[in-house]
Amino acid sequence: MLLSGGLDSATCVAEAQAAGFAVYALSFRYGQRHSVELDCAQAMAQSLKVAEHRIIDIDLRQFGGSALTADIDVPKHDDVGDMVEGIPITYVPARNTIFLSYALAWAEVLEAQDIYIGVNALDYSGYPDCRPAFISAFQTMANLATQAGVEGEAPLTIHTPLLDMTKAQIITRGTELGIDYGGTISCYDPDENGAACGHCDSCLLRKKGFAEAGIPDPTRYAGAP
Amino acid sequence: MLLSGGLDSATCVAEAQAAGFAVYALSFRYGQRHSVELDCAQAMAQSLKVAEHRIIDIDLRQFGGSALTADIDVPKHDDVGDMVEGIPITYVPARNTIFLSYALAWAEVLEAQDIYIGVNALDYSGYPDCRPAFISAFQTMANLATQAGVEGEAPLTIHTPLLDMTKAQIITRGTELGIDYGGTISCYDPDENGAACGHCDSCLLRKKGFAEAGIPDPTRYAGAP
Repeated sequence: MLLSGGLDSATCVAEAQAAGFAVYALSFRYGQRHSVELDCAQAMAQSLKVAEHRIIDIDLRQFGGSALTADIDVPKHDDVGDMVEGIPITYVPARNTIFLSYALAWAEVLEAQDIYIGVNALDYSGYPDCRPAFISAFQTMANLATQAGVEGEAPLTIHTPLLDMTKAQIITRGTELGIDYGGTISCYDPDENGAACGHCDSCLLRKKGFAEAGIPDPTRYAGAP
Repeated sequence: MLLSGGLDSATCVAEAQAAGFAVYALSFRYGQRHSVELDCAQAMAQSLKVAEHRIIDIDLRQFGGSALTADIDVPKHDDVGDMVEGIPITYVPARNTIFLSYALAWAEVLEAQDIYIGVNALDYSGYPDCRPAFISAFQTMANLATQAGVEGEAPLTIHTPLLDMTKAQIITRGTELGIDYGGTISCYDPDENGAACGHCDSCLLRKKGFAEAGIPDPTRYAGAP
């Protein structure tokens, strides 16, 4: 299970546990400017009682090309309607491919046959590596990459329980499953105290999700009391 | 281009250059016990005048499960016929998937559309992630993972010029292209001076290749004068 510290992957852990899985959670220190998400990932792994949580050090900054890892400003807006069409500047090249490849390696060693990732095709349609066709192609490749595929064992499945849900549906579902979203962070550009900026694409989608779900938003925003 | 410091990837660089490409070479410090291969990769990158060479630090040891990264003995034999059938203990879980994912990230930033990997289906049929079906599935996935796939640009190609060649054919071809194989290392378990053990699977295949090609073997073996 890929665990980012955000709202989606926390919900994904709860979904996997509801389906009866013991969760082995994997997070990455990949040079993200918002490393507070790793603190959230650790706290969330603990509160959700995952079987094991590992943080892997990889440095995607060396390739450049993204506002999440390079010295490029994260775009800020007042409303979801102001978000840019197409692939956002916050896209990190091949990030989900790399993350899933590590998950595949660990799954092979654990002899696990199920990998969970909290991607969402609705809110993040601009990211190529969140599309259903990508996930499906990764699963096909993964089954050919590993011993499981060679030995004819039960094939690996990439689970994406949130793929077709709106942010409001995710929040509603996670709340039912007992997630405290106050312990998650979605902001692309939090301040040094871990408070959310409230104006990046991710903050706007999260705010809108809580509003539409009719659930109080527990997010700590910068400048709020 | 994935560059390991071995015989195959050196030949692969020369093949890509012969096809007119400027080569951006990528090597990995992945916790391999035979890290002398990185010295060879650097020297080879220099002598073949690649456009750029990067070494990425990743630690596959944390997942365990392979004689190449863990504290498991590398099997030794006297003859190719003694090699074990099936997946060797030197297989590193998901290694080529992870390596190719990094290559994909760098390719995307470079706006390169061609990735070379020196895998070989004949001599290494035991490794699931060297099979043609794996490479083909990775290419399909890669084209869905990236901006190129979204924007309808020319798709990425994973090139495997050595896929169907015997070790002898690879050595013959590389020699034609001017490779000095004395600067490469194939051994899974070299000594502290970088001399090859002469008895691991990789050494045996290499020896056999030079013998069959009728080309003098420039390998420095441990204990040889």
